[in-house]
Amino acid sequence: MEQKDLKKLLKDVAAGKVDIDSAMLKLRLEPFEDLGFAKVDYHRGIRQGAAEVIYGAGKTPEQIVKIAEKLHDGGQKTVLITRMSTQAAQYAKDKLPLTYYDMGSIGIVGDMPEPDTKSTIVVASGGTSDMPVAEEAALTAEALGSRVTRLYDVGVSGLHRLLSHAEDIMNAKVIVAVAGMEGALASVIGGLADCPVIAVPTSVGYGASFGGLSALLSMLNSCASGVSVVNIDNGFGAGYLANMINRIGEQ
Amino acid sequence: MEQKDLKKLLKDVAAGKVDIDSAMLKLRLEPFEDLGFAKVDYHRGIRQGAAEVIYGAGKTPEQIVKIAEKLHDGGQKTVLITRMSTQAAQYAKDKLPLTYYDMGSIGIVGDMPEPDTKSTIVVASGGTSDMPVAEEAALTAEALGSRVTRLYDVGVSGLHRLLSHAEDIMNAKVIVAVAGMEGALASVIGGLADCPVIAVPTSVGYGASFGGLSALLSMLNSCASGVSVVNIDNGFGAGYLANMINRIGEQ
Amino acid sequence: MEQKDLKKLLKDVAAGKVDIDSAMLKLRLEPFEDLGFAKVDYHRGIRQGAAEVIYGAGKTPEQIVKIAEKLHDGGQKTVLITRMSTQAAQYAKDKLPLTYYDMGSIGIVGDMPEPDTKSTIVVASGGTSDMPVAEEAALTAEALGSRVTRLYDVGVSGLHRLLSHAEDIMNAKVIVAVAGMEGALASVIGGLADCPVIAVPTSVGYGASFGGLSALLSMLNSCASGVSVVNIDNGFGAGYLANMINRIGEQ
Amino acid sequence: MEQKDLKKLLKDVAAGKVDIDSAMLKLRLEPFEDLGFAKVDYHRGIRQGAAEVIYGAGKTPEQIVKIAEKLHDGGQKTVLITRMSTQAAQYAKDKLPLTYYDMGSIGIVGDMPEPDTKSTIVVASGGTSDMPVAEEAALTAEALGSRVTRLYDVGVSGLHRLLSHAEDIMNAKVIVAVAGMEGALASVIGGLADCPVIAVPTSVGYGASFGGLSALLSMLNSCASGVSVVNIDNGFGAGYLANMINRIGEQ
Amino acid sequence: MEQKDLKKLLKDVAAGKVDIDSAMLKLRLEPFEDLGFAKVDYHRGIRQGAAEVIYGAGKTPEQIVKIAEKLHDGGQKTVLITRMSTQAAQYAKDKLPLTYYDMGSIGIVGDMPEPDTKSTIVVASGGTSDMPVAEEAALTAEALGSRVTRLYDVGVSGLHRLLSHAEDIMNAKVIVAVAGMEGALASVIGGLADCPVIAVPTSVGYGASFGGLSALLSMLNSCASGVSVVNIDNGFGAGYLANMINRIGEQ
Amino acid sequence: MEQKDLKKLLKDVAAGKVDIDSAMLKLRLEPFEDLGFAKVDYHRGIRQGAAEVIYGAGKTPEQIVKIAEKLHDGGQKTVLITRMSTQAAQYAKDKLPLTYYDMGSIGIVGDMPEPDTKSTIVVASGGTSDMPVAEEAALTAEALGSRVTRLYDVGVSGLHRLLSHAEDIMNAKVIVAVAGMEGALASVIGGLADCPVIAVPTSVGYGASFGGLSALLSMLNSCASGVSVVNIDNGFGAGYLANMINRIGEQ
Amino acid sequence: MEQKDLKKLLKDVAAGKVDIDSAMLKLRLEPFEDLGFAKVDYHRGIRQGAAEVIYGAGKTPEQIVKIAEKLHDGGQKTVLITRMSTQAAQYAKDKLPLTYYDMGSIGIVGDMPEPDTKSTIVVASGGTSDMPVAEEAALTAEALGSRVTRLYDVGVSGLHRLLSHAEDIMNAKVIVAVAGMEGALASVIGGLADCPVIAVPTSVGYGASFGGLSALLSMLNSCASGVSVVNIDNGFGAGYLANMINRIGEQ
Amino acid sequence: MEQKDLKKLLKDVAAGKVDIDSAMLKLRLEPFEDLGFAKVDYHRGIRQGAAEVIYGAGKTPEQIVKIAEKLHDGGQKTVLITRMSTQAAQYAKDKLPLTYYDMGSIGIVGDMPEPDTKSTIVVASGGTSDMPVAEEAALTAEALGSRVTRLYDVGVSGLHRLLSHAEDIMNAKVIVAVAGMEGALASVIGGLADCPVIAVPTSVGYGASFGGLSALLSMLNSCASGVSVVNIDNGFGAGYLANMINRIGEQ
Repeated sequence: MEQKDLKKLLKDVAAGKVDIDSAMLKLRLEPFEDLGFAKVDYHRGIRQGAAEVIYGAGKTPEQIVKIAEKLHDGGQKTVLITRMSTQAAQYAKDKLPLTYYDMGSIGIVGDMPEPDTKSTIVVASGGTSDMPVAEEAALTAEALGSRVTRLYDVGVSGLHRLLSHAEDIMNAKVIVAVAGMEGALASVIGGLADCPVIAVPTSVGYGASFGGLSALLSMLNSCASGVSVVNIDNGFGAGYLANMINRIGEQ
Repeated sequence: MEQKDLKKLLKDVAAGKVDIDSAMLKLRLEPFEDLGFAKVDYHRGIRQGAAEVIYGAGKTPEQIVKIAEKLHDGGQKTVLITRMSTQAAQYAKDKLPLTYYDMGSIGIVGDMPEPDTKSTIVVASGGTSDMPVAEEAALTAEALGSRVTRLYDVGVSGLHRLLSHAEDIMNAKVIVAVAGMEGALASVIGGLADCPVIAVPTSVGYGASFGGLSALLSMLNSCASGVSVVNIDNGFGAGYLANMINRIGEQ
Repeated sequence: MEQKDLKKLLKDVAAGKVDIDSAMLKLRLEPFEDLGFAKVDYHRGIRQGAAEVIYGAGKTPEQIVKIAEKLHDGGQKTVLITRMSTQAAQYAKDKLPLTYYDMGSIGIVGDMPEPDTKSTIVVASGGTSDMPVAEEAALTAEALGSRVTRLYDVGVSGLHRLLSHAEDIMNAKVIVAVAGMEGALASVIGGLADCPVIAVPTSVGYGASFGGLSALLSMLNSCASGVSVVNIDNGFGAGYLANMINRIGEQ
Repeated sequence: MEQKDLKKLLKDVAAGKVDIDSAMLKLRLEPFEDLGFAKVDYHRGIRQGAAEVIYGAGKTPEQIVKIAEKLHDGGQKTVLITRMSTQAAQYAKDKLPLTYYDMGSIGIVGDMPEPDTKSTIVVASGGTSDMPVAEEAALTAEALGSRVTRLYDVGVSGLHRLLSHAEDIMNAKVIVAVAGMEGALASVIGGLADCPVIAVPTSVGYGASFGGLSALLSMLNSCASGVSVVNIDNGFGAGYLANMINRIGEQ
Repeated sequence: MEQKDLKKLLKDVAAGKVDIDSAMLKLRLEPFEDLGFAKVDYHRGIRQGAAEVIYGAGKTPEQIVKIAEKLHDGGQKTVLITRMSTQAAQYAKDKLPLTYYDMGSIGIVGDMPEPDTKSTIVVASGGTSDMPVAEEAALTAEALGSRVTRLYDVGVSGLHRLLSHAEDIMNAKVIVAVAGMEGALASVIGGLADCPVIAVPTSVGYGASFGGLSALLSMLNSCASGVSVVNIDNGFGAGYLANMINRIGEQ
Repeated sequence: MEQKDLKKLLKDVAAGKVDIDSAMLKLRLEPFEDLGFAKVDYHRGIRQGAAEVIYGAGKTPEQIVKIAEKLHDGGQKTVLITRMSTQAAQYAKDKLPLTYYDMGSIGIVGDMPEPDTKSTIVVASGGTSDMPVAEEAALTAEALGSRVTRLYDVGVSGLHRLLSHAEDIMNAKVIVAVAGMEGALASVIGGLADCPVIAVPTSVGYGASFGGLSALLSMLNSCASGVSVVNIDNGFGAGYLANMINRIGEQ
Repeated sequence: MEQKDLKKLLKDVAAGKVDIDSAMLKLRLEPFEDLGFAKVDYHRGIRQGAAEVIYGAGKTPEQIVKIAEKLHDGGQKTVLITRMSTQAAQYAKDKLPLTYYDMGSIGIVGDMPEPDTKSTIVVASGGTSDMPVAEEAALTAEALGSRVTRLYDVGVSGLHRLLSHAEDIMNAKVIVAVAGMEGALASVIGGLADCPVIAVPTSVGYGASFGGLSALLSMLNSCASGVSVVNIDNGFGAGYLANMINRIGEQ
Repeated sequence: MEQKDLKKLLKDVAAGKVDIDSAMLKLRLEPFEDLGFAKVDYHRGIRQGAAEVIYGAGKTPEQIVKIAEKLHDGGQKTVLITRMSTQAAQYAKDKLPLTYYDMGSIGIVGDMPEPDTKSTIVVASGGTSDMPVAEEAALTAEALGSRVTRLYDVGVSGLHRLLSHAEDIMNAKVIVAVAGMEGALASVIGGLADCPVIAVPTSVGYGASFGGLSALLSMLNSCASGVSVVNIDNGFGAGYLANMINRIGEQ
């Protein structure tokens, strides 16, 4: 029931066209959304012109293309596809205006928007093998319109590399720290920065990294304040949240 | 080396009082902070008049009082003491202007500040037994100056209680969702809200809750976007981060 | 908003006393429950005269007594208190018509109802040390009005004891199988019975029982059909669900 | 020893054809089943005309076909094959009257029976990727003759979708709640419903879902009463148990 | 139904006193044991004069004394009580002819039997803190009549101590190897010995010993052939099994 | 240093050909084995004519054939190859008198010996998918000369099948119980039998079987006495130990 | 058999006083140590005047005093007692020349030796609550004669504090890095230092630190080269190993 | 900022060319390394002529070759490539003077250096399947210039093989002990040796080895002093650390 339907029902009651018991029955059974919670439905929808997201994992190339086409044809300027395989990209390229970012496994249908935020997200990562997850975060935030600075290969075992970017870190509005293995990057950055740090453990590693568990626990136990954690390899979630925070106070 | 020392050294060099090699040696060995990264040291310090934090766990009542006295005498208007035992509070009461919050195990030396933010943090919790952690989060944020709305006992198995607060949830700038057992609260709130949700798993439960592991994993796996997680029972961390986000865009 | 309030509002609209926009606002903000989902609120409430439940763990004796008094004074014939300590029982005895079941840590305020079901729940347990959890299940089901048969000390390492009760097992409408250590009881009973089996792992054991994990995993992996599992030591949950199933088809 | 054999033995004893010691020996050594516990053997067999089940995983297409043929030729109207690969289905199609349900990996040899229950099972699932497990549950219950309502894609992060089906949920006799990741669906449905809820965690997810562990723990810790849990991805077990409960009180 | 009852029933059938259908009904419902599986019941009973076992953990001193008295008065020469607390022993001493073995927490009511086996069990343990579990094993085997040689403090980090007992090891019929921490003793002994080795991990240790998990896994992974493992701290189980093997081939 | 070398050295000392200090040096440095512990080296060698074992996993077909040839040419009548792939068997067939047992992945080069034990090992397994591990155990024991009785598909959820073999179980000298999933078979058999039971958890299962962990824990926690456990899927270890016990008391 | 005994035996053989076969028997049975591996026995003994170690945990005050007296009376100048409770220290103080180090739970009987190494061990720790473990390491190394520099409270979330000690770190011969929670200290120090780093995870923390598991995994996964790890809270092991390395190349 | 730049800046200040505030700003923002911590950057660089390391895992053959060429052309005499696949080696062979060590997956571009240490590293391993990790350690140490003795196939279940190498063990300056399964080797060697022992757990094994977890825990719990542990399968880390220790005291 949309607002106009509710209005109509009330008008009909006022006009005596609908008796009170029928109205009551109708209102009691009406699904939540119809009472004006439509924004619940679309609370994940993003301001005009921004990206609608397709989670590519476990979808066939055909399914991805079909959904992307529908969104794109419907006027969506930027459609973000995450966890898109190279095969899916290959298949989609002929059918859609797709830009595919190999590192990050991200596809963008339509135009990657110009950054429309004044403030900046820093995406930092420890080793080169953490870069795919870092790129998933960075490209997600960019597809949503945020300005992003990448600081890659700034792992804690070579501290000076990280410290040489101290200014970027201190000027960020929010930081995404991506690291596998011992996951110490989040703590060190959390100690340097003054802003929220979103830590993303990665499954990079071997042996006692146990598929990212080591980095995950490490990050959850961070002594630095302002650090919170998302799921292992969840670059998208971090990029999405980072954009959400980055937009606060912008108009 | 504080800024004035650095200035003096450079003046001495300019004046020829200190030769260049001595200056170089001095500068190279100088600890980082002395070169102006003092804000690194105090990056956790909070804007004038706000709370300085003492982590009370593992400290004797005497130690807590000594540190709190020093901070309070040094002009700190609000000193926040977390994980403060009732014994420590008992001991401190005679010696300090302490307000002790039993639920939350928080002590405030000096004045709890008036909220100075226009926007609001919502702290929601599932069951009554999650309330101590929720209070730790709420009081931390309040001690740092944020405006806080508490929504307690809004667990997902009684959905209507949560839904009756839908407006609070939709108007929050940031939400702290505290829950033990199955930890589903974060996902449900994450689905309703449009703002960052900081999930705090609690160790409340028995059996297969495994000391909060169940809630922790549940929250990390949340399908709702915008959710990130802190350590089990880390109400302070969540309250601190919530205040950090709540202040963005306020002046 | 109760039904009569909704009715009144609609009448006011019909009578022109309330304009449509005010009515719309009111309806949109109205908490869910008020729109007729009251049964959501009370879906856990049980048919007239049956037990209302108080979870005693983590509540002070005073709190327990206060809640129990309110329910009892409000006309509740049977108030079930689970995980009630002997101290709480001691304290409550003077103030309330309490029957305390040591084994099972269950308190009943008011009258334990006569069984009003024709069909029977079998509660079976492996060893004597599993009995407290088994009793929590059995007494819960009885407090809710179900007929219960107890088969205790029928562990799988003495199979003939279990088999000598084969008729009880085959005549049950639903069975609660309580076991710690290797938790094999659920599978063996599941193989003998034709009805739903609710398996309750217990934390009884030592070493590699890991606080009930061994029994839990064992029960989840049961090869027997019709078996489902509740949390470790969750006798209440099993008894509650057993009563729910036991009542199906009864009128 | 079937009943008629036992009868014959006793007749022979009565007639003096078999001496008492020989009869005793025979009876003592006779396997359990032969003494009339045939229903033990066939307790999993389902009332006349219903499905006999073949667990397809780890069986070759040839083995599956051979067993299915034997059952079908033996008069079985519906033979249910679970975890059947597309290859096995391909192979079986020429040799048997097979209907293959891709989503769910279920094969039905013979006729899918018309539902013969008045009451209904609701099978609800969180995300599209949980659908294969949900279908395994739904088709199993249907093959056993139950009436099933599917509510798919009603995950807790989009609550209004679930709430718009509140009536289905409240009218169900038993509900199967299938969810991976954070597994919160079981708790939310358990809070809305009045009937037994069988929770099925799925291995869908990545990172800290740890192959379904997160959803499993979440469901075991559900605060909602009436919820019990089966093994990860065990759609068959849930469908089987749901049918068992759904048939109670039907005649 | 004991054998004589079965005989009587068959005689009655032969005599025409009982009709065949009544006999059939009786036989079908008869519990298993009554059909001659009585030895199932007592399969754990041990040859005449040996120990009957009481598991003392979780029993009150009163309960222990009551059971022990009944067994002892019933003619049991040796009653073995495991996991008996010093308090229980204190209480029992006045009432029963009890010998209490502090190290091992074992009580013997009546006489510790003279060893009646020619072959020998070796019980070896790593450190002094593993001795309680080792003694539980050794005393259990002795109470059951086996000859036992103790080799304590022969941990693998002081190999020469173990090697100086090589002859004992090579002459044993079965060996119980008790060790906490890294649990390597079982492998080293398994490599030296030619006979079955029963490994008992202990919960002795700290940190990454995780309550005996480290020793347990280590022993399960032993490269030495002939090694099998019992539960953490299960000295009784190892001593019981060792006695069982030690008696093979003795008459 | 073999015994004859030691004898020669001592003779040389006696004859004055070697001075005492040189002898001392030699003796101090002599590796252990040379002092007569040769049997340490060969303690795993088995009595004349029996099998020498090759662990096939991780060896190339060429390596396996080379070792097997050497043993066979050296007079070994039976060479047992465990975890042999079908490819390795294919490759070896032309070059060696190999019998390959598909189920069990066992190759026998030379003759499978006639059983030379009077007593019998029972190898029991729960489901058909546990059969490969059960066969590994059975064939290992047979290759070592033991008499073996197989009881397959006697899982606890169909108890009558197991009970119909009660006599085999009661007559065994040692039993190997192989089971995946809930691993309850070991406990049930342990409760029926009077002899040592070697439990082998298998990695068969899915979901919360966690690669055999569930069965492993279940078996370690068995309430039945006389049960010990080997590593997951370690059929060889169980068969080897079973043969060791089976031979005790035989001459 | 000590060296002089061996010499005597050989002399007797040379002199014909002992025949060769008797000598052979004697030599074959002689425990390993007696053949000159005495250093095996005492390989943990430390050069003249250094500490002999008593592990105090699980020993009564009386036992500790007795062993310490024996060592001290036997000429040991320094006796190191680890994990000594304050009660044990209280009890021992009257009977022995004991210095007790509360922080570190270390007792020294006799004199703490002057450092006799030129090179230095750095013991660094993250938070104040890690100090007991750090002190255990530092005092152990000092009791063994090493020179130790303590860098406490240099956690990674306040990087400048650590960096201000960069020179100490770069001049160390070996570093012990003690940290709980996220355990990142080892990696950061490992990245700064050029020498072996021994990482000690501590059980300090709460929630997802899981008793030190988080720090342990983090340290094992360190990206920095030269880092190795000891057990959780094993300050003694780290101090012992650090002293071992620190002495290399000193004379 | 290199040293000459710093010098120039100070000269400019001295000469009045740069004002003091500009100099201060420049110094405060200057990255750490530029202030003379260049050795931080190259602390992993190894003395002239030694190996620079490329971690081959996750790099394409092309990437490996490109980096190796750059290092080799830049004058690096020995370039060590770890975790190099055979395909990468195949590809690289034509383009570079590569020696590939199959066992160990190590490539050496240029010359394997002659050992330039007097002291020796012993690399010991348990089973043949641990050899790849052992070789990774041994070749790494050799590529860095250390002298290495290999003791392979000296597992603890055949103790005499290990003991026959007792002299090597006692003469080593540092030992790398590589073992999977139960990981007991480190403890046994730690008990025999007087020098640091670096334990490397391997992922070799099956079932309850849980990918190396069993060996890892076992090694962390070693009772022998002087033992520390690196990550599962981390042969490189162990070889690197062993070389570091082996060089102490050498000139």
